[in-house]
Amino acid sequence: MTADVTSPAQLRRVLLERVERRISDFLAVERERRCRVDARAGVPIDALSQLIGAGGKRVRPSFCIAGYLSAGGDQAATDGVVAAGAALEVLHTCALIHDDVMDASARRRGAPTLHTRLSAEHSRRGWAGEPHRFGESVAILAGDLALIYADVIMSEVITSVAYAPVQAAWAELRAELVVGQYMDLVAAAERSADPELARWIAITKSGRYTIHRPLVIGAAIAGRAELAPTFATYGDALGEAFQLRDDLIDAFGAAADTGKPAGLDFARHKMTLLLSLAMRRDSRVRDLVHCGDPDPDKLREVLIDAGVPDYLERRIDRLVDAGCRAVSAAPIEPGWQAELVAMAREVAYREN
Amino acid sequence: MTADVTSPAQLRRVLLERVERRISDFLAVERERRCRVDARAGVPIDALSQLIGAGGKRVRPSFCIAGYLSAGGDQAATDGVVAAGAALEVLHTCALIHDDVMDASARRRGAPTLHTRLSAEHSRRGWAGEPHRFGESVAILAGDLALIYADVIMSEVITSVAYAPVQAAWAELRAELVVGQYMDLVAAAERSADPELARWIAITKSGRYTIHRPLVIGAAIAGRAELAPTFATYGDALGEAFQLRDDLIDAFGAAADTGKPAGLDFARHKMTLLLSLAMRRDSRVRDLVHCGDPDPDKLREVLIDAGVPDYLERRIDRLVDAGCRAVSAAPIEPGWQAELVAMAREVAYREN
Repeated sequence: MTADVTSPAQLRRVLLERVERRISDFLAVERERRCRVDARAGVPIDALSQLIGAGGKRVRPSFCIAGYLSAGGDQAATDGVVAAGAALEVLHTCALIHDDVMDASARRRGAPTLHTRLSAEHSRRGWAGEPHRFGESVAILAGDLALIYADVIMSEVITSVAYAPVQAAWAELRAELVVGQYMDLVAAAERSADPELARWIAITKSGRYTIHRPLVIGAAIAGRAELAPTFATYGDALGEAFQLRDDLIDAFGAAADTGKPAGLDFARHKMTLLLSLAMRRDSRVRDLVHCGDPDPDKLREVLIDAGVPDYLERRIDRLVDAGCRAVSAAPIEPGWQAELVAMAREVAYREN
Repeated sequence: MTADVTSPAQLRRVLLERVERRISDFLAVERERRCRVDARAGVPIDALSQLIGAGGKRVRPSFCIAGYLSAGGDQAATDGVVAAGAALEVLHTCALIHDDVMDASARRRGAPTLHTRLSAEHSRRGWAGEPHRFGESVAILAGDLALIYADVIMSEVITSVAYAPVQAAWAELRAELVVGQYMDLVAAAERSADPELARWIAITKSGRYTIHRPLVIGAAIAGRAELAPTFATYGDALGEAFQLRDDLIDAFGAAADTGKPAGLDFARHKMTLLLSLAMRRDSRVRDLVHCGDPDPDKLREVLIDAGVPDYLERRIDRLVDAGCRAVSAAPIEPGWQAELVAMAREVAYREN
């Protein structure tokens, strides 16, 4: 394969397909092993397969593959980066399942959430105990299983060569994910309106967990851990842009686009990055939020009237520029510089 | 150190103390790192320290150390087995925290459970949202963090030499833990009275997760993975004995001994191994359980009247014998054969 016949975007797609197969092969083997004693043991594994199969943008595997290939990783020896991409996606599945329990969300990827589905099954079968508790318990365990499987898949990568930088980035990524989630909970509980805290949470959860560390893991597998600072700048900027886009979609987007109802954060009065920046910018937004339980439609109206969407679009533009400049200045193959710019735009200007 | 001046039990104690330090050092470093941005990020880490510091029998690190030393592991190079013991205990902390959420347990190790404590703090501070949900969410995240930390600590061991058997046993142990928990949930929901299923769950959760795999990990670190079949026989037998003892303590023990109220499984009509064996043995127990919601005191009375405690004590004796015979027949240093026999008795005849 040469750059002439295969574009970066094509290469990325080919490897992403291998990530899908790596995940489904792993789960199939694991399912067979666990079901040897009792077929019911397959239920939490099937739940993972179903959720992974139901969609998702595969943002983390994409960035991991981009990190590897942009660092000049060998295109003939991609088992490591494929496994790393699979581990990142399976880890993300844990995050989604546990998140949905914590948020009591009813839908995910256009279908009922795992805990909702299992709770309904408990009722339907007339089982003993409380359906709600059963559904949440299975979801907690299925999420734990995904966290473990992510590690089992990644440990292959880590032990295959002396991959200390991969190991370190993987440890950081996971701790940051959980601590970021925790800070998100606390900020919501405290109704913190501190835009710096909201920004830090966005950078941690969306920037580091989603973009920066996956890129660094990919680059480290390619033996180029020195690209880490470049990917940190790119990832942090894009992470903030990613979160702002998320917030804009939640506040102003349509349910059909995301597979989950719009306005969930709004309805829960979650102190999003969008809202904390808007409060700092406009006193009417501040007054409305401080009054307690603002009506979502009224809040949306005031945000539009205060020019918040435009203000945030300009902020996203600046963040994308900053991220892309870092990549353009780094010793990365030009074809991949362009691809990372395209990926930045995908993340920042996506519609769902 | 020679066997003359230091007995197996003493050596085990010395290494267990190092396991404690390994855990507290790890958590201290991690705490410092996470709190650099915001001191609140230390809360889930402090919750882990607190729970680990509140007690526990350290059964899994003990067996891991016993596996290492009984296999002739080098007493001058114990960093690996100490780290493995620490990883096992931190993993167990995840299991306890998530278990307490799933069971809605109020107390653990003589103190309020993590989710109960955080929920109370949420109320006290008058935070936004539902206290109960906040407490459970923090507990889900703290458990996830423990699961990740267990892996971070174990990955040191796995990468320090080519420890494929350690890696394999660690992967099995974690999957079995979660799948065993899941099967436990399902058996309870279905009110399954199948003693074979109950036995399989006991062997998986108590035998493999608690005894067999920790021993195998220890032996594998000592380079003697071929002891696995011996430790499988020992662990499976002792696991069943461990579970029967647990059930006996739950049914007939006192709250003061365990740090949690007795009779929880009874009160919840959980289909324990004890109950499923008793149902098979005695029709009065069967009738009472089948009638729906048996009164715990009445059930206890019938169990005693049917001779179930004595019957189970004899079963425990046979299991201990079988486990000890396997160890005595294996190529293990005699001092450690005796120690493993003593540990079997500790597990099977403990009073709390």
